[in-house]
Amino acid sequence: MTDLDDYTKRLAEQARVAARKLAAATGGMKDVWLHRAAELVLSRRQELIAANEQDVRLAPEYGLTSAAIDRLRLTEERLVGIASALEEIALLPNPVGEIIDSNVRPNGLLVTRVRVPLGVVFFIYESRPNVTVDAAAICIKSGNAVILRGGKEALHSNRALHRLLAEALVACGLPEHAVQLVETTDREAVGRFLKMSDKIDVTIPRGGKSLIERVAQEARMPVIKHFDGVCHVYVDQSADFEMAERLVINSKCQRPGVCNAAECLLVHAACAEAFLPRVGRALQQAGVELRGDARTRALLPFAKSATEQDYRTEYLELILSVKVVDSLEDAVRHIEEYGSHHTDAIVTNDLNAATLFTTCVDSAAVMVNASTRFNDGGEFGLGAEIGISTDRFHARGPCGLKELTTYKYVAHGSGQTK
Amino acid sequence: MTDLDDYTKRLAEQARVAARKLAAATGGMKDVWLHRAAELVLSRRQELIAANEQDVRLAPEYGLTSAAIDRLRLTEERLVGIASALEEIALLPNPVGEIIDSNVRPNGLLVTRVRVPLGVVFFIYESRPNVTVDAAAICIKSGNAVILRGGKEALHSNRALHRLLAEALVACGLPEHAVQLVETTDREAVGRFLKMSDKIDVTIPRGGKSLIERVAQEARMPVIKHFDGVCHVYVDQSADFEMAERLVINSKCQRPGVCNAAECLLVHAACAEAFLPRVGRALQQAGVELRGDARTRALLPFAKSATEQDYRTEYLELILSVKVVDSLEDAVRHIEEYGSHHTDAIVTNDLNAATLFTTCVDSAAVMVNASTRFNDGGEFGLGAEIGISTDRFHARGPCGLKELTTYKYVAHGSGQTK
Repeated sequence: MTDLDDYTKRLAEQARVAARKLAAATGGMKDVWLHRAAELVLSRRQELIAANEQDVRLAPEYGLTSAAIDRLRLTEERLVGIASALEEIALLPNPVGEIIDSNVRPNGLLVTRVRVPLGVVFFIYESRPNVTVDAAAICIKSGNAVILRGGKEALHSNRALHRLLAEALVACGLPEHAVQLVETTDREAVGRFLKMSDKIDVTIPRGGKSLIERVAQEARMPVIKHFDGVCHVYVDQSADFEMAERLVINSKCQRPGVCNAAECLLVHAACAEAFLPRVGRALQQAGVELRGDARTRALLPFAKSATEQDYRTEYLELILSVKVVDSLEDAVRHIEEYGSHHTDAIVTNDLNAATLFTTCVDSAAVMVNASTRFNDGGEFGLGAEIGISTDRFHARGPCGLKELTTYKYVAHGSGQTK
Repeated sequence: MTDLDDYTKRLAEQARVAARKLAAATGGMKDVWLHRAAELVLSRRQELIAANEQDVRLAPEYGLTSAAIDRLRLTEERLVGIASALEEIALLPNPVGEIIDSNVRPNGLLVTRVRVPLGVVFFIYESRPNVTVDAAAICIKSGNAVILRGGKEALHSNRALHRLLAEALVACGLPEHAVQLVETTDREAVGRFLKMSDKIDVTIPRGGKSLIERVAQEARMPVIKHFDGVCHVYVDQSADFEMAERLVINSKCQRPGVCNAAECLLVHAACAEAFLPRVGRALQQAGVELRGDARTRALLPFAKSATEQDYRTEYLELILSVKVVDSLEDAVRHIEEYGSHHTDAIVTNDLNAATLFTTCVDSAAVMVNASTRFNDGGEFGLGAEIGISTDRFHARGPCGLKELTTYKYVAHGSGQTK
């Protein structure tokens, strides 16, 4: 226990010292590190693949499914992908030091808000080893030190990747402890870090709901959470049916296993008869199981009956809840009651309806005539992302470099007194 | 106990419903409410003063000092001040609905970030009844419902003020429960609210350190904290001594009892001999007790000896710690070690020194050649403020209307799919 206390405290203190140095690093130094890390990922690929093979061998012991083992595996091709991601982050603008806004006061005082790093990020994630590199890159580029806690299933891979990242930091004159890996698999270590609100500025858990809930419960510092996406597409009576069908299919089917895929279709009663049979056939052809209310099933006899719980479910597979609503207001109420404030879309050609929907639906992203699948850092133009926040505070929706920063006021005067 | 559960739950649920309605209110409606509330504060001043007299009569029972009783008292003049503050907030721009930024993607998707209210604010404060009105005004103007928990010493005054505010809400067609007052003085009520992370979006405690610590410990939702201000003025060797003296005196003496008053003077060794005797005399004349290190006392024999604890103390009175440092880097290290990341100033004519200080000092506000007293919502141009955050997350420094908002992504397309 004392060992664990010492170990976690040492990591956190080293991160704090590193963060202070990193905050003053230029964008150029950070980019040199990103390029160097990309080179090492390629030139040391044999070492990385060998370490990864140890994890893959042990995977059945941890009860990983074959799909999970596939996600765990590092191949030459995947290492090329990891290196490219590093190069892409190097191309993004350095967010640190940017003057966000300024204001010259009547007394001549120039008040500026300057973007600065949050400080120390504690990042908890599961098995895919590429996340280790991505998260480190986003944190360093935004000037933050990071403590990485990956899944035990990927420990050997993560150790090997972390070794390269730290080596590259030293080679580039950046603080070695700016990226640290929690090397113990003791679950208690997480609890220790979650108490260190004086050393860690934000915790980002990425993984299953129980992990996120545990972190939200125990953390004494701010947390950026990434909960469920129970996303809706609402088809208004004024919608172009061809467009609506295309958007429903894309939102549901393009990649059903992700948080911004649609889980529920709401259709205005005035167009249910004209639209539902058409979209129902298309969804059926795409292999989607439909679960509807009575009015839906009257029009789509092949649809199963939806339970109350269905409307609250993030299926993450080819299943879609369907409901006929009497008005846009009913659609908004349904989304408020059953949704998860992640991503919701309206398909409409009515300006009033679009305005009402975007004003009243309180979600991280609200789409008008576009697929729910666009709620993503890349698609929104943020560059890299470390997750999609379902919180309201500080960062909402995709979290890129800027979302890992805060600001300070810097005021320049010429002797002003109050 | 069950009664308390029911009561607190009811308030929180009413606040949530009110917040949803308020988020869609126009700026005009909110401003009409502010004007109406200002009118009522003036026209019903006898009722308010009578309620306040009950608090003033009971004050000795609560052990209030005469200074505290004075702060508690409502007079005609103070009510005029409260009404003016409401009118001033009405003049500020409505922050809700503002497009913060936008980005047209290569596929034609227009991605905007739209400013929206945080939702429900739980505001905990102490005895001054004007804070009841200020906080309600700032919350409503930024589109948030607020649950007010004032001090028990001001309960009668707060009830009377709250009655007017709620009456004005109803008269203006805004939800009555957008402003609610916790009417029980049971300390347990606070604990109940702090657990309701599903109903309350942010808690803002304003008061003593123990209150803030308790809230930070118990709250399950984000908290905007307002901790100590151990603020420094560092006089660099390149400083204009006349300006430096003026800024030190103003930072320390203009209002010593507030968080942005200076508590520690750091002087570069190269100018200590020339500057310290001069500023020492001026501070002595202003009635300031000095507590210095050995090098300071060699130059200022009348200074007391500073202990380690002195350098960590927010005196809030006419006492100043003084230390001679060997370099700007030593000053930065001292501020990092002993300061509270609130407000720190440098006096210098050296551009390099100014840049190094503003880059390395990690405080909510960093001043160059200006008094620490300017770290304030009014002085920085935010209009009204609900506190000065010493947190890094979400809001840092003065918190005005914008700091009580978040954003959502609203994306407009024409049928884009991924």
